[in-house]
Amino acid sequence: MYKVKCIISYDGSNFFGWQRQKEFASIQQEIESALKKIFQKEILITGSGRTDRGVHATKQVASFSLPKNCDLNALKKSLNALLCDQIRIQNITAEKESFHARYDVKSKIYSYRINTKSLCCPFMRHIQYHHPYPVDIDLMKKSANLFIGTMDFSSFANVRPEKMQPSSNIRTIYDITFQEQDGLLTISFHGNGFLYKMVRNLTGALIDVGEKKVSLQELQEILEEKNNQHLLRQAPAHGLSLDDVLY
Amino acid sequence: MYKVKCIISYDGSNFFGWQRQKEFASIQQEIESALKKIFQKEILITGSGRTDRGVHATKQVASFSLPKNCDLNALKKSLNALLCDQIRIQNITAEKESFHARYDVKSKIYSYRINTKSLCCPFMRHIQYHHPYPVDIDLMKKSANLFIGTMDFSSFANVRPEKMQPSSNIRTIYDITFQEQDGLLTISFHGNGFLYKMVRNLTGALIDVGEKKVSLQELQEILEEKNNQHLLRQAPAHGLSLDDVLY
Repeated sequence: MYKVKCIISYDGSNFFGWQRQKEFASIQQEIESALKKIFQKEILITGSGRTDRGVHATKQVASFSLPKNCDLNALKKSLNALLCDQIRIQNITAEKESFHARYDVKSKIYSYRINTKSLCCPFMRHIQYHHPYPVDIDLMKKSANLFIGTMDFSSFANVRPEKMQPSSNIRTIYDITFQEQDGLLTISFHGNGFLYKMVRNLTGALIDVGEKKVSLQELQEILEEKNNQHLLRQAPAHGLSLDDVLY
Repeated sequence: MYKVKCIISYDGSNFFGWQRQKEFASIQQEIESALKKIFQKEILITGSGRTDRGVHATKQVASFSLPKNCDLNALKKSLNALLCDQIRIQNITAEKESFHARYDVKSKIYSYRINTKSLCCPFMRHIQYHHPYPVDIDLMKKSANLFIGTMDFSSFANVRPEKMQPSSNIRTIYDITFQEQDGLLTISFHGNGFLYKMVRNLTGALIDVGEKKVSLQELQEILEEKNNQHLLRQAPAHGLSLDDVLY
C-alpha cells in the first residue's frame, strides 16, 4: 500500500457537500464508489476538510492508500470515466506514507464570487451570487482588515449540527483580497483554517457593511463579542469555492 | 397595442428548445406563461428562429405586441422576477408596428465552443463540448473556407421531424471565425440563415477534417452532393449558442 494525494474540482450544485452521508449524494461518496468499482474493495478517502452543501471546489485535496504498483495516470482516467462530469480528478501523485490531507494542511484559500450587475448571466448563475445592489467596495476592503490576523472567530461561526465541535475558535487569516472585473467581485480569503460557515458569514458581514447596514464600529464590536448571537447575513453557498489547499 | 423587441439570454440545458410544445418545457412557453401572469391574457411571442433542445442563447430576439402605455423597464423586471434564472430578459424596446422578429432578420451569428483540454472544467461543462483529442486547427480553418458564400447546404442539414421544410436549402455564410484561448476553441458562424442542425453538422464536419478522418477533397465532394446521405459527425447541442441576431 502507498499514499497518494488527489486533486479534485467539483461543481457542488447537486451535492449535499463533500462529506459521505447515508442518504444523500456527496463528493466523497461518489469518489469512494468509483474507487470501489475499480479496485473491487473499499478504499476510504480523506478530504482536506468538508465543503458544505452547494459549495464548489476548483482545488480540493484528498489522500488515500492504494495497492502497490498502481498506474496513477490510468487511475485518474478511470476515475474520470466513472465519475459524473460535475466531479473531475485533476491529478493523482504519490506521497510519503505519512501524508494526511487534513492534518497536514498549512492553509487554504476560499473565494466568494458576487455578481453585482443588474442581470446575472444564465451560464454563470450556479457559481456566482447575484447581488445587484450598490455596495461600497472601499468600505468592504476597510472592514475586511478587521479580520486579518489571529483571533477568535466565534462571532462568525455557526454551530455544527453534529456533535463534533472544534476545540478552539481561534484561526488566522493571512489575507483577504478583492478583485473586480466586469461586474464580478471576487473576495478571496487565505487562512490557516476556517470554522463552520465562517467564509459565508464573513462575506455576508462584508456585504452588510458595503450596503451601510452595519458600520465598521458595529462590526468591530460584533467580532469582539466572541459568540454568534449577532450573526449578520450569511452569503449563499453557490457563490463559494475552495480554490486552493496548501501543504 | 404596439410592437416590442425583446432580447433574451438562456441556458438551454434543461429545455426542449425555444419552440412552444405541448408536453415539454420550452423557452417560448416560459416567457409566454410569465406574460400571461402579468397581463392576465394570452400574449404570443415570435422568436427570430428556433433553437434546438439543449442549445443556448446569449442573444435571442423575440417580438410581440403589448397594450399601450406599458412601462417596458418595469415589464423587464417583472418578467425576470417570474422567470427561472436560466432565462434572462436583457432588454425590451419599442419597435415600429411592422417589426417581425423572424421575417426581418438580416443575419445571425452562432458560436460553437469546443474545450480541447484533457479535462473540462466542471463549472463550464454545460456550455462547452469537451473534445480532448488533437485537431489540426489550420486544416479546420482551410476547410471552413469551403462554406463561405452562397450555396446549397443540403449536405449539412437534417430533415425536420415535423412537416414544415424550408422552400430552399440555399443559404449564405458571410464568415466563419476561429478563436483560441486557454484550450477553448470557439467557432463563430455568421450567415443569413441556417438550416435545421446545420451549425452542428458543419462543426462536426470541421472536427472530422481537423482529426484527419475526412480530407478537404472529400469534404468538398460531400458539399457538392447536395443531399444529406453522407452526414458526418454532428457536434452535440450543449456547445452551441445563438450569439446575435442582426436586423
